[in-house]
Amino acid sequence: MRVDVFPTVVNIPDAAELENRAAVAIDVLRATTTILTALTNGADTVVPVLAPEEAFKVVRDNPERRFVLGGERRSVVIPGFHLGNSPLEYTPSRVEGLPVLFTTTNGTRAIRRAAAAAEVYIASFLNAPAVAKQLIALGKDVAICCAGTHDQFSLEDTACAGAILAYMSGPGSHLELNDMGLVARELYLRYDGRLGDLLHLSEHGQSLAKMGLHEDLLFCAQLGTSTAVPVFREGQVVLPGAKRA
Amino acid sequence: MRVDVFPTVVNIPDAAELENRAAVAIDVLRATTTILTALTNGADTVVPVLAPEEAFKVVRDNPERRFVLGGERRSVVIPGFHLGNSPLEYTPSRVEGLPVLFTTTNGTRAIRRAAAAAEVYIASFLNAPAVAKQLIALGKDVAICCAGTHDQFSLEDTACAGAILAYMSGPGSHLELNDMGLVARELYLRYDGRLGDLLHLSEHGQSLAKMGLHEDLLFCAQLGTSTAVPVFREGQVVLPGAKRA
Repeated sequence: MRVDVFPTVVNIPDAAELENRAAVAIDVLRATTTILTALTNGADTVVPVLAPEEAFKVVRDNPERRFVLGGERRSVVIPGFHLGNSPLEYTPSRVEGLPVLFTTTNGTRAIRRAAAAAEVYIASFLNAPAVAKQLIALGKDVAICCAGTHDQFSLEDTACAGAILAYMSGPGSHLELNDMGLVARELYLRYDGRLGDLLHLSEHGQSLAKMGLHEDLLFCAQLGTSTAVPVFREGQVVLPGAKRA
Repeated sequence: MRVDVFPTVVNIPDAAELENRAAVAIDVLRATTTILTALTNGADTVVPVLAPEEAFKVVRDNPERRFVLGGERRSVVIPGFHLGNSPLEYTPSRVEGLPVLFTTTNGTRAIRRAAAAAEVYIASFLNAPAVAKQLIALGKDVAICCAGTHDQFSLEDTACAGAILAYMSGPGSHLELNDMGLVARELYLRYDGRLGDLLHLSEHGQSLAKMGLHEDLLFCAQLGTSTAVPVFREGQVVLPGAKRA
């Protein structure tokens, strides 16, 4: 089983190289952590949109429906949006039964690029073990697509890819990894049990900490607290098997 | 002192972000190792060209001059060229006093992208300690530009960036690193004294080993055997202070 890790959006290969694989999109701080949280707290779907204007258009075109608009630019809430990019904002009382239109700087692009694959899963530390289990069950070659930060390698996304690889590794599995995969798995294993430290060490984590978002970092550093594996298909992220509104 | 490591050509930032920095271009297997070797073996200059046609045109336009044409496509010598991309081919008897027109798949692109910086140095494991010393002496912020392999992260280039960082680190220096820099330095330190193993573990190294190029890997894995620091300026790589033909 071949598993390649791609460190940033610009390193994700062309659609033709993804179409027979399963893909995993990761943006630990904070898009994919937030998407998972919104869905487990009852959001109907999360629709990743590339630009705020795209979200406003959906709202205008569907005047009879209620939407939650969420996301960020430069880590802060977008004017006219309901929520930012903190997973802590996506409480059941705010999102239950509603579709979330969601746009972030890096995460949304990674999901859209990964979408060329046969299956696309949304991962964060919270569900990394569950995603690993799903990939092993599926048995296809895998492309793990890290968002990175502004096309630069990020410690937290690569370590999360490494966590998935560590949980996929075992006596029963033979993983053929690319160079980034080897480094990702070693990085995760070095910070196993200290993911909060890792997030505070990362450039993006430091910039969020400076904004006072320590609680977000601690939330995003939780490992394996969720068994949910969100799937991106037909333009939206859903929880398969979840009761839909 | 800020030092950023960029893992592949597509991750190297735009010219505006490089212009006040020193840049280092790295393609351990094998372009920058070969360029260094050619120059220390007496080549007059090495001119990185993006395409073989560019080299043939220079030859046609300068019928009175002798050139060495070197480089590779898919790791093999280019039809009509004199030499491939193995450092072992660039012996004094073949290159002394001659300009080398040189093109490779990844290394040439990295050098050309790094060229937006104020100074551009050419590094490999052979001269990593010497390059580190030069960067500390210069005192500017640094962009370490790894070539990678076909826009993918490569173990050997990142480890070489890490070797430079390890040699720059010390009681007298305060380095502010990006996330890739942190990982690069740790990667190098883990393989310190076992660089041959690292190269044989890397995807590119394995592909060269399958072609029978073990001796190239061993040559490229030598650490600190050269004190030369080639500089790229005005379209060519030279050894400052070397006697020019």
